[in-house]
Amino acid sequence: MASSKISPLAPKAVVQLPPVAGVKLATAATAMKYQGRDDIFLGLMVPGTAVAGVFTQSKTASPPVDWCRNALGAGKARCVLVNAGNANAFTGSIGVRAVEEIAATLSGLVDATPGEIYQASTGVIGETLPFEQIVEILADTVACAGEADWSQAAQAIITTDTFAKMSSRTAVIDGIDVVINGIAKGSGMIAPDMATMLGFIFTDAPIPSDILQNLLAPAVDKSFNAITVDSDTSTSDTVLAFATGQAKGADQIKPIEAPLDERLNSFREALGAVCLDLAHQVVRDGEGAQKFISICVQGAENDEAAKIIGLSIANSPLVKTAIAGEDANWGRIVMAVGKAGEAADRDKLGIKIGGVQVAHLGAIDPGYTEDQLEDHMKGQEIDIVVDVGVGQGQAQVWTCDLTHGYISINADYRS
Amino acid sequence: MASSKISPLAPKAVVQLPPVAGVKLATAATAMKYQGRDDIFLGLMVPGTAVAGVFTQSKTASPPVDWCRNALGAGKARCVLVNAGNANAFTGSIGVRAVEEIAATLSGLVDATPGEIYQASTGVIGETLPFEQIVEILADTVACAGEADWSQAAQAIITTDTFAKMSSRTAVIDGIDVVINGIAKGSGMIAPDMATMLGFIFTDAPIPSDILQNLLAPAVDKSFNAITVDSDTSTSDTVLAFATGQAKGADQIKPIEAPLDERLNSFREALGAVCLDLAHQVVRDGEGAQKFISICVQGAENDEAAKIIGLSIANSPLVKTAIAGEDANWGRIVMAVGKAGEAADRDKLGIKIGGVQVAHLGAIDPGYTEDQLEDHMKGQEIDIVVDVGVGQGQAQVWTCDLTHGYISINADYRS
Repeated sequence: MASSKISPLAPKAVVQLPPVAGVKLATAATAMKYQGRDDIFLGLMVPGTAVAGVFTQSKTASPPVDWCRNALGAGKARCVLVNAGNANAFTGSIGVRAVEEIAATLSGLVDATPGEIYQASTGVIGETLPFEQIVEILADTVACAGEADWSQAAQAIITTDTFAKMSSRTAVIDGIDVVINGIAKGSGMIAPDMATMLGFIFTDAPIPSDILQNLLAPAVDKSFNAITVDSDTSTSDTVLAFATGQAKGADQIKPIEAPLDERLNSFREALGAVCLDLAHQVVRDGEGAQKFISICVQGAENDEAAKIIGLSIANSPLVKTAIAGEDANWGRIVMAVGKAGEAADRDKLGIKIGGVQVAHLGAIDPGYTEDQLEDHMKGQEIDIVVDVGVGQGQAQVWTCDLTHGYISINADYRS
Repeated sequence: MASSKISPLAPKAVVQLPPVAGVKLATAATAMKYQGRDDIFLGLMVPGTAVAGVFTQSKTASPPVDWCRNALGAGKARCVLVNAGNANAFTGSIGVRAVEEIAATLSGLVDATPGEIYQASTGVIGETLPFEQIVEILADTVACAGEADWSQAAQAIITTDTFAKMSSRTAVIDGIDVVINGIAKGSGMIAPDMATMLGFIFTDAPIPSDILQNLLAPAVDKSFNAITVDSDTSTSDTVLAFATGQAKGADQIKPIEAPLDERLNSFREALGAVCLDLAHQVVRDGEGAQKFISICVQGAENDEAAKIIGLSIANSPLVKTAIAGEDANWGRIVMAVGKAGEAADRDKLGIKIGGVQVAHLGAIDPGYTEDQLEDHMKGQEIDIVVDVGVGQGQAQVWTCDLTHGYISINADYRS
């Protein structure tokens, strides 16, 4: 249920996204769950659009996730259809049929194969998706493709989100400007991999699907897969990237044949920035969040170990409630390092909060007093740096605090 | 900080524990953190008492944990000393010295080696333990050994607990009655292995230390290591078992030389019951807990996988908040099964809540309606049975709901 109160951590300025050549947007309302708002987003791309995707690791993944994963093999997308309010997850054979019916109808309307129709659903798990209500509005929705803007698209896919999430960057390939736009939704059930987190990236760059996949996966790893709100992983997590190749002058770009092609450096950076921006917005909209927490782990055995330790801290209810209480209770950070199961040298452990050395060489720093952190803990942005003293591995993860708001939202979500 | 309000899930009747031959108890007050209550517990055992122990798996284990782990090799204990309010964890070399000084002083007072002195500390992490305050009261405390009862002992070790945790059973070995008493503390930072969870088991049975260890480990595995309050694992978790061999007639028991000795069946069962009783009491005192949740996972690949899935459900903030809201939101259980990472067949998954078949063969059960569960969800005891449809593995775990009370307690614990 979308809350009327916007997260205090929401971006202050709402961005306006530019068009992406070759992409038309539409939104629609089915009223299957929400009244008075659009709950369907359709992205219609030119034929031949390349696609890449990263999905939940859940063992109970939803039918739309299964569908997209299967479709990816062909690497082409004509459209993406998203509904909010019903996850079509754990819905038995009727859930599978829902995805098939939508793909069949939509492919007929846009003159594509069913395998070029990408789908995502987000909302309550276990309720049958009344797919007939979607199917019956598809023709009208396709007919008005091009009438919605990015803001309307981002609004149509939210559930408990308190603000729509958008990001845009430009990049240069072979001297040609390309646009990367992204929209995302997610605020609870957020953890790698990845959460009721949907992200859709659209670019007019001419990138083949296999290369796009190679660019998307590491970008997701350092963004959507490096955030956590509540450690709960959704059945429906999906990030899809679409490349239409319709940027002005794109036909002058010589074919891109390798992910490490240096001409992709600017695009790679911009794609990473869009993913990170969207991922941070998801954390900033964490259910009940009052504070945005950055956690950097250094000195781990390797980067993977650093990430596991970082997520152990980020997922600790005791760390998150301490921060909610504006208490620099760094002992709980030590606890969370210890429980992560990765190598850490207790007697070399160091912790900085807000740039202040709190613990050093396995004990409280002699120069540290709590009043040094009073202002930082009262702020909205909390920075934690932990050195676990065993190697060179490092990682950065992001989370939010755990507040009464989270309990209130989740103790009566379905009511 | 002990709360004045007792958990609504606390046992209705307070048990009185019988004496254990060969064990004398004392409590004392240092006022190092708490005013107007005892914060020291001393258990003094006859020379030759056998000991076994199971400890936290934390990589940042506290000096008392390190000390006990090292001492276990010799297998003999003369006394156990516990302080509440300060965990002596992450306290650098002074924390190690604290343990050594206490052991040195106490061993002199009770005519034992330092390696026969067992210690545990619970409370805030990272604050230097003012061990001189403990050392200076040791002589008086030893002098009054025998004056405290089990209830006073259990009271002296609590921190955020709202009630003292005790359990007792009798067993028969070779026709001789033996007693098993246990006390425990813990209510937050509770997760396998094991939590700010301290448990102390005392028996007058004549069990050698290696056999006791063989009996204790599996009992802990199915009790203290099968509970979770908040998924956070403490630096200080400790369960110690002491066997004095002083039961009346114990000298007639022929030496026990193997853990599978059939004469131990009654003892094994009673030990398991004491551990489980105490572990359940810890969950019932979970910070802010309003409901006691039993989760049984069946049909997993093996028992270990079943336990991992069970703990994934038990640790899910979304499952726990749904139950707090008296909402039978079984979709979140599906989510938690999926994120556990263990094999599960989405299309064979079945879920029962309060004995009612809610989901069956991967979808909502056709006969299920939410009003069937209304009474169960309003009750204090919630039963969840999940069949993941791939094998024969099963496990049972226990947890509590996640409420505003948890946030309130933990957002200002140190204040």
